[in-house]
Amino acid sequence: MDRERFERQLRFILELDKEKNILRQTHLSGHGRRENDAEHAWHMAVMIWLLKEYANEEFDLARAMMMALVHDVVEIDAGDTYAYDEQGKKTQKEREEKAAERIFGLLPPKQREELKELFAEYEALSTPEARFVRVMDNLQPLLLNDSNGGEDWRAHGVRRDQVEGRHASTALGSKEIGAYAMELIDENVRKGNIRENEEV
Amino acid sequence: MDRERFERQLRFILELDKEKNILRQTHLSGHGRRENDAEHAWHMAVMIWLLKEYANEEFDLARAMMMALVHDVVEIDAGDTYAYDEQGKKTQKEREEKAAERIFGLLPPKQREELKELFAEYEALSTPEARFVRVMDNLQPLLLNDSNGGEDWRAHGVRRDQVEGRHASTALGSKEIGAYAMELIDENVRKGNIRENEEV
Repeated sequence: MDRERFERQLRFILELDKEKNILRQTHLSGHGRRENDAEHAWHMAVMIWLLKEYANEEFDLARAMMMALVHDVVEIDAGDTYAYDEQGKKTQKEREEKAAERIFGLLPPKQREELKELFAEYEALSTPEARFVRVMDNLQPLLLNDSNGGEDWRAHGVRRDQVEGRHASTALGSKEIGAYAMELIDENVRKGNIRENEEV
Repeated sequence: MDRERFERQLRFILELDKEKNILRQTHLSGHGRRENDAEHAWHMAVMIWLLKEYANEEFDLARAMMMALVHDVVEIDAGDTYAYDEQGKKTQKEREEKAAERIFGLLPPKQREELKELFAEYEALSTPEARFVRVMDNLQPLLLNDSNGGEDWRAHGVRRDQVEGRHASTALGSKEIGAYAMELIDENVRKGNIRENEEV
């Protein structure tokens, strides 16, 4: 064992612990508290394994799971940017790239490059893994929010075109799950949980 | 898409959400709140990917990651049993097997059997995947607890033989990480965070 290498890996692992304190806008099912990034990523990785049969393309399972597990690591420094926060999204890229440099920089060189690559691929949706991970990043809060009668959408006054816009990327990774997401959005518009575009 | 099959998978995925409310005895780094099962499993899966080079045996990476992600699912019904709770451990097996039947039973037949198999392998440590997952199940709370000056061990008055007993299984999956764990235990005994056996 190269002890210095191992200790760098452990330093990164301990740094990751902070993701458990980064809160998202989504609430847990059963009208629970707000979800954190680690819980969200855990749920996504399980979903990748369980729902892999619906992917549009062949992909590397372990690679996609790891991409899901660390896709929000940069939020340790950059914070969570809500999917429908148009102001926050303007500075998001810059804040997150700086964070990626610092946090992945804790790792030994080869693993640092591997994780930066996973992160960049995910941002660009440039690989089959990235496109399937994005399906889960979109589907997971949709399921929780739907289970809670849409309370997160209602709290933020979210419109149909915003949710549908986000889910445009769902079909890139899975046409079948993309179609299901659109159904669930329709149903939540009918129930008044998501606002119709013309109401605004 | 077989819609009934997909809906069974979603039902299981939503049921899993409850793991985010199962609290462990371990506290987050920085003297934080108690950790939950989902956070612990997320951390373990990332660690499997990052530390795979230290495994004693070749193993299937995605399979081990999934095993880690769902290894505590039964605690949704059976609750968390603290590693050093000798009373609770007597009924743990029975409680957890009943829970596995109900929770994995939500899934379509083939996935139900796959997950029950992962769970059984993990309990028996009967495969290379199971043995490496156990390394992380032991190492992860050791790192958090060490980072917090051993507050969880001190709160429970834990003895050296108890921690060493638990970590006997660490070396089964990784001799190198097992040796590191023993070093860290020694250090924490020296600091008074873990009690020497003869003090009891």
